[in-house]
Amino acid sequence: MFGLTYSMNKEQFNDYLYENIPLSKALGIVVDIFSHHQLSLKAPFRNNINHKKTVFGGSLHAVATLSCWSLLYINLTELYPLDIVITESHIQYLMPVTSDFVAQCIFPEKQSWHRFLSILKNKGKGRIKLQAKIYQEEKLAVDYEGTFAAVKRLKP
Amino acid sequence: MFGLTYSMNKEQFNDYLYENIPLSKALGIVVDIFSHHQLSLKAPFRNNINHKKTVFGGSLHAVATLSCWSLLYINLTELYPLDIVITESHIQYLMPVTSDFVAQCIFPEKQSWHRFLSILKNKGKGRIKLQAKIYQEEKLAVDYEGTFAAVKRLKP
Repeated sequence: MFGLTYSMNKEQFNDYLYENIPLSKALGIVVDIFSHHQLSLKAPFRNNINHKKTVFGGSLHAVATLSCWSLLYINLTELYPLDIVITESHIQYLMPVTSDFVAQCIFPEKQSWHRFLSILKNKGKGRIKLQAKIYQEEKLAVDYEGTFAAVKRLKP
Repeated sequence: MFGLTYSMNKEQFNDYLYENIPLSKALGIVVDIFSHHQLSLKAPFRNNINHKKTVFGGSLHAVATLSCWSLLYINLTELYPLDIVITESHIQYLMPVTSDFVAQCIFPEKQSWHRFLSILKNKGKGRIKLQAKIYQEEKLAVDYEGTFAAVKRLKP
């Protein structure tokens, strides 16, 4: 999959998600903010409703995960051929989400980002924690943290 | 939604999931083991594939969440009219899943279950941690823990 870089626009990146991760289409994900420093994904209420007419917790987690993975993806695929995998995550559901929602991945602090890039460059692999937030009427509704590992591909 | 009890068979419970949580249909969930003491949900590889031809981490989390929620649901809805919500979860992705998979929710230890039921009975609400596991060729691939809150509905 290496070769798809930030030269993609957000519609192309949206197509890439739908094609490669079909659940992203079922979730109804629409790429919202698409940059190296900030990435957010929108999802509609109707695709993700549950029996209580709130958004299913599994959907909130999935969209938050994809927002972090996507931010990492567009920052790293320009640098090296590599694989990005999630190793762990923790999510807090602070209040119900009852409408269309946006998961926003927050760029990590400069220091931890540079440490991660340096380890990745020197050792061929590195791990980083990324956070995503989902707000409901300006209140924090979902607080997510995922740990992602990037591993450079060996040259053939 | 109160009124759907363990008198449902597993096909009826499957229909209930599809109807009330449409993402469960996109995930391709099939109720596998369906009892008060053990609950497992199957999901097909093809619905949940990602760009690396492994199962998307968001799908693994969603199916694990639903397996725990379902076990709690069939145990509690016979007792009281109540709502069950997830408040928090933690998931470890220990190895990639590369085939159809099963998320199995493990019934909690007797002592913590009885403590939970007693608090729920007396205070009208209680919290419990539930675990789910996903295996790949007999090795633990996904280790999930969710915290769920049950809240009795007030009589009208």
